[in-house]
Order: sequence, then C-alpha cells, then structure tokens
Amino acid sequence: MEEKQTEISQLGEFGLIDRLTDGLVPRNESTLRGVGDDGAVLRYPSSDVLVTTDLLLEGVHFDLTYVPLKHLGYKAAVVNFSDIYAMNGTPRQITVSLGISKRFTVEHIEALYSGIRLACEIYGVDLVGGDTTSSRQGLVISITCIGDALSDEIVYRDGAKDTDLICVSGDLGSAYMGLQLLEREKVASSGQRDFVPQFQGKEYLVERQLKPEARRDIIEELHKADIKPTSMMDISDGLSSELLHICKQSHTGCRIYEDRIPIDYQTAVMAEELGMNLVTAALNGGEDYELLFTVPLHYHEKIESLPGIKVIGHITKPELGCAMITRDGNEITLKAQGWNPLLETDSE
Amino acid sequence: MEEKQTEISQLGEFGLIDRLTDGLVPRNESTLRGVGDDGAVLRYPSSDVLVTTDLLLEGVHFDLTYVPLKHLGYKAAVVNFSDIYAMNGTPRQITVSLGISKRFTVEHIEALYSGIRLACEIYGVDLVGGDTTSSRQGLVISITCIGDALSDEIVYRDGAKDTDLICVSGDLGSAYMGLQLLEREKVASSGQRDFVPQFQGKEYLVERQLKPEARRDIIEELHKADIKPTSMMDISDGLSSELLHICKQSHTGCRIYEDRIPIDYQTAVMAEELGMNLVTAALNGGEDYELLFTVPLHYHEKIESLPGIKVIGHITKPELGCAMITRDGNEITLKAQGWNPLLETDSE
Repeated sequence: MEEKQTEISQLGEFGLIDRLTDGLVPRNESTLRGVGDDGAVLRYPSSDVLVTTDLLLEGVHFDLTYVPLKHLGYKAAVVNFSDIYAMNGTPRQITVSLGISKRFTVEHIEALYSGIRLACEIYGVDLVGGDTTSSRQGLVISITCIGDALSDEIVYRDGAKDTDLICVSGDLGSAYMGLQLLEREKVASSGQRDFVPQFQGKEYLVERQLKPEARRDIIEELHKADIKPTSMMDISDGLSSELLHICKQSHTGCRIYEDRIPIDYQTAVMAEELGMNLVTAALNGGEDYELLFTVPLHYHEKIESLPGIKVIGHITKPELGCAMITRDGNEITLKAQGWNPLLETDSE
Repeated sequence: MEEKQTEISQLGEFGLIDRLTDGLVPRNESTLRGVGDDGAVLRYPSSDVLVTTDLLLEGVHFDLTYVPLKHLGYKAAVVNFSDIYAMNGTPRQITVSLGISKRFTVEHIEALYSGIRLACEIYGVDLVGGDTTSSRQGLVISITCIGDALSDEIVYRDGAKDTDLICVSGDLGSAYMGLQLLEREKVASSGQRDFVPQFQGKEYLVERQLKPEARRDIIEELHKADIKPTSMMDISDGLSSELLHICKQSHTGCRIYEDRIPIDYQTAVMAEELGMNLVTAALNGGEDYELLFTVPLHYHEKIESLPGIKVIGHITKPELGCAMITRDGNEITLKAQGWNPLLETDSE
C-alpha cells in the first residue's frame, strides 16, 4: 500500500525540518520571520495579539487506525484556528511541535505536515516555527496559534447578559456520531483482510470527525451584519460544558430548548442505529467546533435571518441556574458531561 | 516519603487548572488577559513579538528517577526564556501544555507547576494559558514563550561577518557532565535501599543539569556596554552544532581555539573520572543554555573586559570552513555531533 519510506534518522532533525518547511512563504504582514532562528518574529502595532494552544496525543485524542495523517494534520491546525475565531479574531501564525516515535517515517510526517500546510493555506495562516523530537511511544502534536483582533472587537466568555439570545452555528453531535461510526467499523474490521468500512449515507458524520472546519464564515457573516456577540466560545467539549463556562464566567443562568438544538439528519439516523440518546450526543458529544455565542435580544430578527445560525435559548439571571427545557416541557439541569480526556482510563 | 496524594480525576480538568493557576497576577503591561478564555490576549504596540516553543517528553528529555518535578518545571520554562534572550529579547508570557499519565497525582503536577511559576517569578514572565490532558504513557510538557524586543535590537543567527569575534558566556560541558554523573548514580543505586548518591565536590555539575538559568544577566551586560551582537544563539545542542548554524546561516566559516573554550574545574575532574574526552563534552555536550554570539572585531578590548564572557575565536570567509585549532596547532573540522534526540533509539 505504501510508497518508498525513508527513516527519519537518515535526515536527522535539521534535515527533516528543512524538508517539512521547504517553500514556506509568509502570507501575513505580521509575520516578519518564520522558521530558522531561536524564535519567530511578529509585528502587531495596531491590534491585540491572541494566543491559544492545544496538545494532541496519540491514543488519547486520535487513533491512527482510521485517521489518515494528512487529515490529522489538518484537524490539529483547524481546532486551533477555531479558538482564535471564537474570540472574534483572525488566526495568523502557528508553531508546530512534534514528538515522533520510531514507527513513523519521513513520508508519514510529510503527510501530517501536508495537512497542516493545507489548513494554513486555506485559512491564510503562516507556519512560523516549532520543535521536532523523538518520542518513546506514539505521536505527540502540540500546536500554538497566534491571531489578532482589534481591541474592541475581541469577544470573551464573560460578557453574556440576562435576556441575551443563545446562538449556535451549524449542527451538533455529528462529529461525535462520526467517531462512534469509525470506532464501530474499526471493531468490525478487526482481523479481517480487505475489509470495506460501511460509510454509505453517513459521509457527513465521517467528515465532521476527520476533517472539521473552523467557522470563519460565521465570524465574517456576523461582522457583515454588524453584530458583535456579547460572549463566544467554540464547542470542543460539548454544548453543555461550554454553555456552563459562559454562564459561570458571565455570572448568569440560561435556558435552552431541546427542540431548537440543531441536529443533522445523519446524526439522528446514526443515534437510532446505535441506540444512543440523540440529545445527549448533541449536548455532550464534543469536537463539533461550532460557535456558541450570545447576542442582545434586540438582534432577534436579524440573527434569525442569517444562514447557519440558530437561536437555541436565552440567558437568565444567575439564580435561575442553567437548564434545558425538553420537548415535553420539563426542565433538566445542564451538567458538564463533556468529553474530558483527564477522566479517561489510561494504559499506564 | 510522600505527603497526601490526590487523584487528578477527583478534580477533573477544570478543577486542576483552577488549582494550578490560582492567584496568577499579570506582571507585564503586555498581558491583557491570561488563563480562562479560548486564548490569551496580549498587546505589543511598539515592539516586535518573539515566539519560541519546546516540547519535552519523559524518557527522551528527562528521567524522573533523578529529576525532581519542581526542577523539571523550572528548567522547562527557563530553556524557553533562553531562546528569547538569544534573540536579544525579553520573555513576557508562556503557555504550558501538559499531558499527564495516571501515575501522576495533583500534588505531582502542583510540584511541577511550582517550578514553572518560580521561573516565571524570577524572570518576570506571565503564565497566560495552556492545555491539560491525559497521556497514555509518561509526562509531556509543551511550552511556548512569547517575548518582545525593539525591532532594531533583535539579533538573528544570520548576521555574523568575516573577522567578527566569537564569544560564549559561562562555561561549557558542565550540564552534560552533570547528566553523566546523575546517570552513574542512578545505575549505582539500582536495587539498593537507602542509597546515598555521591555528589560531593560536584554540586555545580548537578545544578547545571537540573536547574539551568537563562543568561539574562549577559544580555543586560551587553546592553549596558552598548554592544549589539551581530549574531546570537543559545547553546542547547552543543557549541559545535550551534556554531555551524550561525556560520551556515551567515554564509561564513569560523576558527575557534581549543585552549580558549571555557571549562569549569568540576567538569574537567568529572571527565577525567569517567575517562571521557573533555573537549568533546564541551563541544557537543548540550544543555548548557549559555549564549554564543559574535561581535565586530573593534569590540575586542571592551568584550574581553566583561565578566563571564570569553572570546573563543573568530568568523572567517566561508571558503575556510569551520574548524577548531587544537592545543598542538592542528585544525579539526567542526561537526554537528550535538545531542540529537531524533537519532536516539526509542523503545517503541
């Protein structure tokens, strides 16, 4: 299946870095110097600088049995861009650190990098540095993203106010259902040669899991409509967990409505097939990388008219707590049951 | 030996982060917002922004058999500061990402963090964010450091010119000898209870390995003396490897003199004891975190008068290549035999 493979030790650290970063040309004015010195040099004279970072570990955050390296690289970059958009900023630079175990070849790392570089190209981001080292076990990916925003444009988590509308972009739970599907096919394939996974009619779920996009389009849409959210986050751990962050930091409560949570048809079918609770998946699934934000009540009509955005509830006074109103009119208290890798069982 | 230990799962990711980042107060004007949102917010209206990152993996970069967690945290932060100083800048912020396996408790991570926070305190740096996750095996530390410098103050690797003097701070090879000593005592202690390691008279070596400092003092000294280096790097992989970087990027050659390489007495004694070549250790040992820099020839007297700095040779035209003149007058071509974790044998 695989082409010619080159051992990393044949190139050495600096040879590998040269190969991976070959032909990089800065796209942003703020990038003065990229790869090749003790550090990168950036310039932000008139906007604020946003910094976010993510650590991804093989066996915890990704499974290379079904995640192609190029997709992994793309996703690793995009989830960082998503954090910058979630502050209403624009991602500009990333640094990429890799820990690489012996089973990876130069070609593997090139595939990973091709995904990172593709994401950078699509989102207009410069790869400006990093660190490359060996790992004793598995692949380690640490990405830091730097972005910018005008000072008065930045949106924090703590600005939600009583009566604000709670909005989400896209749909929820599909990335989680994609993961379930991939895991199911992995189990089914075990020990079988020439196994063909069954993804027909569920391509959207697989794509949401393997190749998420950051919602730059939503940020641009809001900007054009002249709507600045009062608070915003991206949904990486699940709607429920993120909404609790916003309410805690804003000192508010909230009400969301089960029947307003946007769920794709494929997500619903898959939940049915697996006998899983659909709303639980949408509330706690995680890895959606959609935007969760609040806007003042008077934007109601305007926001409802924007494509890809749905109002799912409203902010309340803190004493009302955080709850979801079910289809049959009951109130369920929201809990952070999101995907928390710190609580998972480890192999060590 | 150990006090009360708390399982990390008792606190969860956000509980742990709250505990680790409790009481953090920004020290720098450039830090507008630290931990607690999708990203940190910084402001650099009048200086350039420097970014550097390092990935440290258990079993590759550190051995917890003899490295105390607090020291590890201190060192992990300081080696990043060192990269910023090596560009003639000032470190201002760091983000800290940790991958933590099940054998670590809350108290362990607090010890690690206490070292990171101590380093931040001493060097005036703000901890502004990060990511905390579980790891399947061992400890993963990824730190990104952001610093600043006035645009015309930044020193790159590519500015060395023919006839420039090559200077190093401090002494070389001691951190490497410290590592050899710690490894020797680890082997000696194997299987023995109540083993007392033999560090008498070699405390300096142990300290250089376990608790290196970044040479802020040298940067300040050069600044006061009004000397701006033409090129600079910190010595993390070994003098030989770093000097080759400077010469390659500056398109020059170099000559350094064996008898001018600064070596501490304890380093020499240890090399003798272990039957190792002292100059090889000084050239290729790595982890010195001293500064290697070049200055124009006319600074000769001025630079020789500064404490803690030694002129070890000079830059030449590129066709002369890179070589060391030995005590007996021979020329040895410099090679990058520095500590390269990518070439080491892994367990996987």
